[in-house]
Parts: sequence; structure tokens; C-alpha cells
Amino acid sequence: MRGLFVGRFQPFHKGHMHAINWILKQCDELIIAIGSTQHSYEVENLFTAGERTEMIHQTLKASGIADRCIIIPVPDVNNHALWVSHLNSLVPKYGIVFSNNPVVKMLFSDVAVKVKDVPLFERDKYDGTKIRRRMFTKGDWKTLVPREVSGLIDKIKGIERLEKISKGDKL
Amino acid sequence: MRGLFVGRFQPFHKGHMHAINWILKQCDELIIAIGSTQHSYEVENLFTAGERTEMIHQTLKASGIADRCIIIPVPDVNNHALWVSHLNSLVPKYGIVFSNNPVVKMLFSDVAVKVKDVPLFERDKYDGTKIRRRMFTKGDWKTLVPREVSGLIDKIKGIERLEKISKGDKL
Amino acid sequence: MRGLFVGRFQPFHKGHMHAINWILKQCDELIIAIGSTQHSYEVENLFTAGERTEMIHQTLKASGIADRCIIIPVPDVNNHALWVSHLNSLVPKYGIVFSNNPVVKMLFSDVAVKVKDVPLFERDKYDGTKIRRRMFTKGDWKTLVPREVSGLIDKIKGIERLEKISKGDKL
Amino acid sequence: MRGLFVGRFQPFHKGHMHAINWILKQCDELIIAIGSTQHSYEVENLFTAGERTEMIHQTLKASGIADRCIIIPVPDVNNHALWVSHLNSLVPKYGIVFSNNPVVKMLFSDVAVKVKDVPLFERDKYDGTKIRRRMFTKGDWKTLVPREVSGLIDKIKGIERLEKISKGDKL
Amino acid sequence: MRGLFVGRFQPFHKGHMHAINWILKQCDELIIAIGSTQHSYEVENLFTAGERTEMIHQTLKASGIADRCIIIPVPDVNNHALWVSHLNSLVPKYGIVFSNNPVVKMLFSDVAVKVKDVPLFERDKYDGTKIRRRMFTKGDWKTLVPREVSGLIDKIKGIERLEKISKGDKL
Amino acid sequence: MRGLFVGRFQPFHKGHMHAINWILKQCDELIIAIGSTQHSYEVENLFTAGERTEMIHQTLKASGIADRCIIIPVPDVNNHALWVSHLNSLVPKYGIVFSNNPVVKMLFSDVAVKVKDVPLFERDKYDGTKIRRRMFTKGDWKTLVPREVSGLIDKIKGIERLEKISKGDKL
Repeated sequence: MRGLFVGRFQPFHKGHMHAINWILKQCDELIIAIGSTQHSYEVENLFTAGERTEMIHQTLKASGIADRCIIIPVPDVNNHALWVSHLNSLVPKYGIVFSNNPVVKMLFSDVAVKVKDVPLFERDKYDGTKIRRRMFTKGDWKTLVPREVSGLIDKIKGIERLEKISKGDKL
Repeated sequence: MRGLFVGRFQPFHKGHMHAINWILKQCDELIIAIGSTQHSYEVENLFTAGERTEMIHQTLKASGIADRCIIIPVPDVNNHALWVSHLNSLVPKYGIVFSNNPVVKMLFSDVAVKVKDVPLFERDKYDGTKIRRRMFTKGDWKTLVPREVSGLIDKIKGIERLEKISKGDKL
Repeated sequence: MRGLFVGRFQPFHKGHMHAINWILKQCDELIIAIGSTQHSYEVENLFTAGERTEMIHQTLKASGIADRCIIIPVPDVNNHALWVSHLNSLVPKYGIVFSNNPVVKMLFSDVAVKVKDVPLFERDKYDGTKIRRRMFTKGDWKTLVPREVSGLIDKIKGIERLEKISKGDKL
Repeated sequence: MRGLFVGRFQPFHKGHMHAINWILKQCDELIIAIGSTQHSYEVENLFTAGERTEMIHQTLKASGIADRCIIIPVPDVNNHALWVSHLNSLVPKYGIVFSNNPVVKMLFSDVAVKVKDVPLFERDKYDGTKIRRRMFTKGDWKTLVPREVSGLIDKIKGIERLEKISKGDKL
Repeated sequence: MRGLFVGRFQPFHKGHMHAINWILKQCDELIIAIGSTQHSYEVENLFTAGERTEMIHQTLKASGIADRCIIIPVPDVNNHALWVSHLNSLVPKYGIVFSNNPVVKMLFSDVAVKVKDVPLFERDKYDGTKIRRRMFTKGDWKTLVPREVSGLIDKIKGIERLEKISKGDKL
Repeated sequence: MRGLFVGRFQPFHKGHMHAINWILKQCDELIIAIGSTQHSYEVENLFTAGERTEMIHQTLKASGIADRCIIIPVPDVNNHALWVSHLNSLVPKYGIVFSNNPVVKMLFSDVAVKVKDVPLFERDKYDGTKIRRRMFTKGDWKTLVPREVSGLIDKIKGIERLEKISKGDKL
């Protein structure tokens, strides 16, 4: 059975990794769909689709599960009524969706796709918004993401990018 | 003479119906343009264009005025300077516009189209935002919309949809 | 039961009208979806969505069946895999599709929608391409379309438009 | 050497003119890129691209520097990661960018383009937002823009437009 | 009076220059709208909008008429019915259009804009398609374009670009 | 070192597999970018992005090289001048591109990216167009694609799809 897991992964963190490991106990393969890929260099959407793909791929590879996962960037479609079929055109066939988002769950249920909740792993710590806030306040964010992710963020000067964007007027 | 009446109709309510009946005393035919058709499954834009068309069509038919009205979905164009000609490409020719919106009135006046105000029918009650709020708080919304509309909203489980969207993170 | 009938209607002709009358013997209501609405002022797509809507509405009204039909303009979506759900977001719910186009039939069958062929009414005469050709060569095209359609085409100087477009370089 | 100066110019004011004169002491030619050209008739984006182009052209011409400047409208691209190459496809080659915006500076630096700050000329007075606020409150805005700009805004009834938009619901 | 002249300018040639000089005998100012700006690196659309702007600006400047002309890039809008208002949102107000294209003339006439033919200057020689063909066959194309244009095409290796594109499969 | 290999993969065939194996002798990792992902259900673009991703993933996995490859769907951008930065925003960083397409090679060279030719493996047999033709004429196409690919095409009834599309009018 192939599962589907959707997220924005800004950035990919240990909570995500925990969920993926949990799912892979029940599925042979997992599609990891990266959402909102057209956004980047924004406070809420700091990293490009390519950078997020690299974060995930490097982490999965280091964990020895890269060949069981398929990472797919999915640009937003500005009409929720089209979202499922838009996503379906971009990803391989799957049998089950893993999500805790009520809208995602409703949209898949409306087309008779099975959806299952994912147990949250220390949600108060492992949360994209909180991690970006720690990045901004120079707090400890590195322990919240896989080593491969913090390495990449350092290499692309992600903290400096966030600082500049926070100060910047819009383009 | 053919008139034009523009709205988002989220949902179509008795205030709209009142306006339509008032307009049809002055016009032979009326174009009902449904705006923002690319939005749905959002708190402010709950229903799809198809659902809104069905609400209006069923109500007009029950009132025996369906053949005097032409319902047209109009997606947004993200440039106000193009809006009138975008709309004109989608609807039959018309001689007069009915609207109370100052921007709509300005845009039509700029191209020399005649615009007329519509008397508001109990505006404090018949208002899309207020009706959606009542839906959310389980208040009495059914008396504010035509029977055909409440029937359809029940059939598509509109209240449940609104609840889920209200809780949901964005996609 | 509500049916769905899809066409470009460039222009709406007697063959379409014949099909609609045949469908309305089996369905209570019919959605008439006008495709490729973003195209106009082209040799193959001569009329705007608004003009095509007006052609159909006037003809249906003159035949006394306007209140059983819902005319919906549907812009193209440049991805066949999204076409059915794009269309579904724009039209009321329907139970059966009427079409002879193999691709349309496949796309609906893939999502388990029932599709039925429409008997063609003198296909060698009632055909959009042939009618546009007769318009261009000043042949008899008026007998091939409903009176309301020829009247509208005269009023908007459709033949003159076709001549100019045929000569024109692209914009 | 050819320079590049980016702004939204809502409206073009004396602070902009001051910057342009300062840049033209160092550059032979200057590209003036007008951003967000698809927005207009909004409180924050009052004027169309055409109107902003006219404001700038008339002022430059009156100052005798029109032939050293190239005004280019640049629509937004909804992905910051594409912004520099999108802009590059629309403007002539340039050697240096003038900007104080940290995001603009980062995006150009990332592709090794030289960026230089522009000395701000009485920033607390010459600022688009403040000027639009004075327009709205009927304060003195005319002394803050070149005479050609106030003349154009009067001609197109810009203040009246702003008032209507401020009152208007969204389209 | 301000005039409007529309072209793709692939490349800008002496026929265009001849037309511009002719128009400037009747108009104080001229808007030169560059069409199809989103196309480049194609056999029919070799140069980017930026390169075409540079060709025109350099030539006008060398002729001493740069300050009487406003060059505006205009991306295509895929709906002819919207084309005039799309263009109008991007350019300053104008009083007359100069064009020999029957479709352009019809679209402007439909909205009551005055259109005037431009006398063609040795059309069999000065024609974009023919000039690109000469470029491809290593014929003499340089005498057909202003010196500033041939200089720029040399600098950006335009002939080499054309050769590669001609051989290339599509992307 | 990470390489980049671009194709449409309609379908993924043994020539592609041969190229990938050749590249992986020189690179640690390979990004496989699937182009034109918004096209499907067309004679030239038969399979969806999801189906093509599945073809490639299954084949790579069976060959034991899935964890060294990153498959990325890349929608077309309708402006060649933006193509490289559009692609760069979607894929992880890479050091070298493998391609024989002259346009692709020019666009990467223009931004100083190293490009290397790929030795063609029996090009007269392993070619997407020829394989689709064999599919259509019921010739032997199965020996030209990996077993995983022919299995998937059978499962999704790809040959039947091609037949219907070949007969179909456009939507």
C-alpha cells in the first residue's frame, strides 16, 4: 500500500520525520507532497521548493528510507474545489492519506479517499511557525530539525535570509 | 431592456431575491453575474460556483422568473482596470447595471454605462456575512434564504463544511 | 434527472437545438456548458462567451424551454486531467453527460460518470466548421442556425468580423 | 553605465525625482522599473501602470532627462525566487541596482549584481503611503509631487477615485 | 496629440523607424507598444522584451527623438476581447492608433478609437519574418536594421541563438 | 557531485535508463526533472506527471538506484527566458546538466552552468515519438521500455487511452 502525506515543510523538522517513520510501519511506500511550492523568500514561506526537497531527501537518505519515499512538489491551485484532482495529476496512485487538517480530510473524504490521523509528536515543540520564530530570535532551533536540515539551512544562510525578509518592504 | 446585477451570493438570500424582483419591474431580462467563482471551501467563500448557480436557478424557477434571467459565473480578474471588459466578454449585452457598490459604480461610469442603486431590503438582516455567521453559531439562518437554498445547503452539508473550514489550517 | 451537454457553440446551430430537444425528453433539466470561453475574435472561435450565451438563451426562450436549461460558460483549463473537476466546480450537480467526443467520454468514464451518445442530426450540414466556412464564402448559413442566432450575428456584424480576422495577422 | 531603479510609484513624488537626479550623476542611463503593474483602483495601488508611466514620463521630459531614462512596467511574479530573472527578461541590460529594500538587495546580491543604497530625501515627507493619506484627508499633497503629477491626478480625478475605493466593498 | 504604434519588433527594423518618423510629423508624442513580450528564444520570437526595448531606445536616442517616444512592453492576453482594455491599463492615454492590421483596427474601432493606416516603406524588404530568414541563411540583414540594432544583435550573439533554436527540440 | 537530467518521459524508456546509469558513474546523485507536467491525455503527452513519476520511481527502485535519484515534476513556464530560474526554484542545487538539446544547452550556458552531452543509446529505437507510434499501431513497444513501465501502462489502460485521444476532437 502507498500512502500520501502533505505538508509545507517550512522547514522539514523532527515532528515530520517522526510521522513518516510511523506511517512507514503501515505502508510500503509514501508520497511526500510539498505544498505551496511557488512561495519562497517570505516570512511564512522561507525556503524554495528545491531547498525543501533537498532537506527531505538528505534526511530520508541518511535514515535509509529514501527509496520507499517519493517527494513531489505541488504548487497551490487557487481553488479548493480543484485541489484534490490537481494533486492527483501530479502524484502516483495512493491508497490512503495521512493528515490532521480538517479541510484536507473533508476534501479527500468528499471523493471517497480514506484519510487517517497522524499522532502528533510533541506538537508544542515541533511546529514550523515556532521553529521559524526561534530562528528569528536566535533561539535554539537546530535541535528541532534533523542534522541534514540544519546543515543545509546554514549553507544557504537561511537565518540571514529570514532577517532580511523580516525587515524588507514587500517587493 | 436587459439589466445586470452582480454579487458573490455566498449564499443567495432573500435580500437578493427582493432586489431581483424589484429590477424585473423595470427590465425585461436580467443578467445575474456571480462573482469570485474561483473561490470555494473558504470561510468567506463557502460555496462553489456550481452550487451558487444551482441555488439561484432553483429559486428563480420556483418563482416562475427563470426564463427572464441569465445566470453567469464570472471568475475574478486580478486587475480592476480590466474588470468591466472581462465581464463584458462573458455576458450578453445589457443596458443598465444595478449596484450599490461605489467601486463597481465608478468602473461602469468610467466607460459610460448607466448604473442605478438598488433599494436595500432589511440590510441588517439580509447580508451574506451575517448569514454565514448565523450558520456558524447554529442560529436561525434558514428563514433568511429562500427554501430552495436552505434545502440545497442541507443536501450538500454546508454547515458541516463551514465548521471544518473554520477549524482548518490553510491547505 | 439533470443532464449535461458540452459544446463550443461557434455558433449555436439547429443541430445543437435538435440534440437539446432530444435530451429534454429524457431529462428534467439540462446544463449547457459553453467551452473555450476565453477565446473569441479568432477564425475558429469567432464569438465571445457572452454572445454565445445570448444566442442560446434567446433561442431557448423562443422555444419555451429556457427555464429547464442552465447555460454555463466554462473557460479551458490547460490540463485534461483537471478538466472534469474544473467543470464540476462551475456547474450544478448532474446525473448524466451527453457527448459523442471520445476524449470527453473517457474523462467522465474515468470518474464513473454515466455518458450517453447523442444522435447526430444531419451532421454533414449542421457542423460549426462548415457553417463558419459558409459565412466566409457568403453562402447560405442562415438556414442552418435558429432565427434568433442569425439575428444576433447580423446585429453584431459577425460576417464582417470573420472577414477581418481572416485577413489579419495575429495581434 | 546603465543603472536600475525599482518602485511602485503610487504616486511618483519628489523623493523619487531626487533619487533619480542623484543616480544620473553616476550613470549615463537609468531604467525606471514600475512594479506591481497589474494592480490599480485599490487603496494601496491607486493608479494604473499607464497612469504611472505618464506621470514619470511627463516629469522627466519637463526636466530634460527623458532621453536618459527608460521606463518599464513590470507585473508582479508571485514567486520571489523568479523575480530577478523575470525583471531581467523585461529590461535592457544594466550594471548596477539602486535600492534600499533589504529583500531587493538580497535577491540581486544572490545573483552577483551590484546594489547601492540611495540617500533618502526627507523620507518622513516623501513617502507614497503618507502622500495617499494626505490625498484622502484632503491635506496638502500637491507640494510633495512634481507639478506634472498633480496635474495628471487632477485630470483623472484621482482624489475622487481614492474616496470611492475607500468606501467600496471589494468587487 | 499622442499616438500609439503596436508591433512585435522581432527585430526593430528600418521600416519601423520610417513609420515612426512619419507618425511624429503628425503627433507630438508616440507610444511604442511592444507586443508578445512573454515570448523569447523562439524562432518567431527571438529577442526578449528587454532586448527589443534596448534596440528601440538606442535607435530613438541616436535619432534625437527618444524624449518624444514612450516604449511600453505589453504581454499577450489570451483573449482578444480583453486586448484593448489590457493595453489601455498599461499605456498613457492616446488619441489615435497607427496600424495596418485589420484585427487591431477592428478592436479599436469597436470601442470608438480612431485608427489610421501607416504607409509601408518597402514592405517586401523591411519585414520581420524576411529579416529573420536572412539572419538564418547568413544573408545581408544588417542593412535592413538601424546600426544600433545590428550592434546589439552582434553583442548578444543573436545569430548563434537563432541557429541553436532552429536545431533544438522544444524544451 | 549532483547532476541534472531533463526530459518529458512520454513514456520513460530504456534509452533514458541507459543514460541515467551512464550519468550515475560520474555523479553521486541525479535529479531527474520531468518537464511539461501540466500536459496529459494528449497524443504527444499521453501520461500525467503522476504516472510518469511512478514509471520512473518503480524502475529506479527495481534497479536499486532510487535513493541516488530525486524525481521532480516541472511545469512549463511559457517564457524561455525564465526557464532556468523556474527550474532552479524547484530542484535541489546541482553542479552539472546532462542534455543533448541545443536550446537547453544554450540556456544553461548563458548562466554559466556546465552542460555535458549524453551518449545516445540506439536513438533510432529508443525515442518517445517512435514508441508512442508503435503503441498506436499495436507494434512491439513493450521491449523498448522497462518492465515496470509496461506493467503500469497496461494497468492504466494506456493504449486504449491513446486510441481514444487519437480519435477525439479537442475538448
